[in-house]
Amino acid sequence: MKTPPLPPGSTIGIMGTGQLGRMLAAAAAKLGFKVIIYGPDKTPPAAQLANEHICASYEARDALELFAQKVDVATYEFENIPVSTVGLLIKYGASVRPGHEVLEVCQDRLFEKQFLQKLGLMTAPYWDVKSPHDLEIALKDMEGSGILKTRRMGYDGKGQVRLGQGDDPQTAFKACGGVPAILEEFVEFDCEISQIAMRGQGGEVSFFDPPHNLHKDGILHQSHVPANISLEVSEEARHLTASILEEIDYIGVLTVEFFWSSRKGLMANEIAPRVHNSGHWTVEACVSSQFEQHIRAIAGWPLGSSARHSNAVMTNLIGEDVKGWSDLIKNPHIALTLYGKEEARQGRKMGHTVETSPL
Amino acid sequence: MKTPPLPPGSTIGIMGTGQLGRMLAAAAAKLGFKVIIYGPDKTPPAAQLANEHICASYEARDALELFAQKVDVATYEFENIPVSTVGLLIKYGASVRPGHEVLEVCQDRLFEKQFLQKLGLMTAPYWDVKSPHDLEIALKDMEGSGILKTRRMGYDGKGQVRLGQGDDPQTAFKACGGVPAILEEFVEFDCEISQIAMRGQGGEVSFFDPPHNLHKDGILHQSHVPANISLEVSEEARHLTASILEEIDYIGVLTVEFFWSSRKGLMANEIAPRVHNSGHWTVEACVSSQFEQHIRAIAGWPLGSSARHSNAVMTNLIGEDVKGWSDLIKNPHIALTLYGKEEARQGRKMGHTVETSPL
Repeated sequence: MKTPPLPPGSTIGIMGTGQLGRMLAAAAAKLGFKVIIYGPDKTPPAAQLANEHICASYEARDALELFAQKVDVATYEFENIPVSTVGLLIKYGASVRPGHEVLEVCQDRLFEKQFLQKLGLMTAPYWDVKSPHDLEIALKDMEGSGILKTRRMGYDGKGQVRLGQGDDPQTAFKACGGVPAILEEFVEFDCEISQIAMRGQGGEVSFFDPPHNLHKDGILHQSHVPANISLEVSEEARHLTASILEEIDYIGVLTVEFFWSSRKGLMANEIAPRVHNSGHWTVEACVSSQFEQHIRAIAGWPLGSSARHSNAVMTNLIGEDVKGWSDLIKNPHIALTLYGKEEARQGRKMGHTVETSPL
Repeated sequence: MKTPPLPPGSTIGIMGTGQLGRMLAAAAAKLGFKVIIYGPDKTPPAAQLANEHICASYEARDALELFAQKVDVATYEFENIPVSTVGLLIKYGASVRPGHEVLEVCQDRLFEKQFLQKLGLMTAPYWDVKSPHDLEIALKDMEGSGILKTRRMGYDGKGQVRLGQGDDPQTAFKACGGVPAILEEFVEFDCEISQIAMRGQGGEVSFFDPPHNLHKDGILHQSHVPANISLEVSEEARHLTASILEEIDYIGVLTVEFFWSSRKGLMANEIAPRVHNSGHWTVEACVSSQFEQHIRAIAGWPLGSSARHSNAVMTNLIGEDVKGWSDLIKNPHIALTLYGKEEARQGRKMGHTVETSPL
């Protein structure tokens, strides 16, 4: 249903208080919105750029009710927010965009794969693994190797175990938490790209150019635009992503990670119902950033232009990488973004750089 | 003296809490700095994007001392902050960049003209007017016409009276507040441009492309880049502005408004020791914006690149203009920036748009 665009001065609520919430808050402020963030962390990255922080757990009914009453529209910055939390917000009268249906798909790798296949997207072959016995059978079918991934709560390489010849199913299942999982075949691919797309309340869809993503230790390291893929592949990625957005009547920014293989084509790896780390370069290189596009969409505004005016390389600053700031700032073409986190723990995303160059 | 660059996590203090402070705070946050704003307004535009707001007058010694203790470097968003306030901050141990010397020049139109002339810059002819009698003599010399401007506290056309044939000096002097003023000759010019430049602690200087500025009712209406001026004129504007920056060992962003006349050349109209309304397009069209450059400079960081990747037209939203937001957002190439002000009073700057196009 199309509602009138929210006027400036309205309040955007963001569930989650990390760097994505921080950058969404900055984009919302630029457009004249007030921002309330919600999450249990006491000194989170997003608080600096928000008007208010409701510091409470995702199960705290009173706090959720207060949040629901205060905001004109609510959104979330990560897909592992409990579906029941979103249900409560809706019960308390909040408009939540995107809705909770997409969370149910994205929070479970098995449901996600089934959803993608239903829409005709290719995925890596996988087995449903509920027990060590299931894993034993699956491994035999996959010639002894694959990646065991927990169905729920996995991100940045967490909840994953790589299995090779001779590995014991019992041990592996336990190492992965002893919880329902899937065993995914190792797929060979030429590169990983991500298609970041958005859909407005009027049903209009827009796409950023897909970056080529490189990983290090299971965490995104760099995103390069333009990616070294053909126009044909790029158009297919758009087409497949649009089919997802339309199937679930999605409002906001959504990202699909694809593996591209010249032999097999595009395989969908994962859906993120949100702005994405591989899209941070859109702040420096596009007319409207992914953060602005998401805020525009959930506020019922027409989308801005996703056109790219520069080439870009985004590099994550993980853990101690951030200590290199004094060298990074010497390159005048590098834009630095830091998330205001105090402790540079191993594997923690502390900031990123975007190096731009003319088209 | 060159000091080491301030590390991320340090605190930037901003005197003044309006839209320029708001955009400076956003730029500082992106670079990982904390921000404390200082000013008497209770719900100012900059508060949304700052970690803390010290709400006090510019004469409140206790509050100034607290501010000085909390910040690692202080700056100001407007040139009419009392020089004595900056003096107190320095007394209480704060580093203030740019310093107070430039304020003494910029707060007084007579000193400003004398300063410009001393450096060899051309200005409009003017008379020092201390009394109605001075004005009478000056008017005779200027063939009966000119603009009477108060020496202090004038901006956006305030504190100005236009005088033509037959106007009474006594009445005009009173209309202008009965305070020390200058009478400036009406100068004919082809266009007004502004040169926004910055200087880092290492003495390096960088320049944005000068926009061509159009006014309405004495307030900036639009800034267009590129301006329709020759490379030669552009280079002269840079050269003249650099001479100002170097003369006063300036740190940060500084703006010089010039009148350009094909007959007379470049005449300096005004110096603003700060980021400038005519530079707002640098957010959407340059690698580093004027706000980021100012923060980098005062934090002792090397300057970023001032290179422009897009053409741009910035349009101010004054007073009720802002009510047109729902039409403005329909153009996907228009970036909207609103300042979070509740009341759209006449003549009040409420926001601006930047329409970009490829180079």
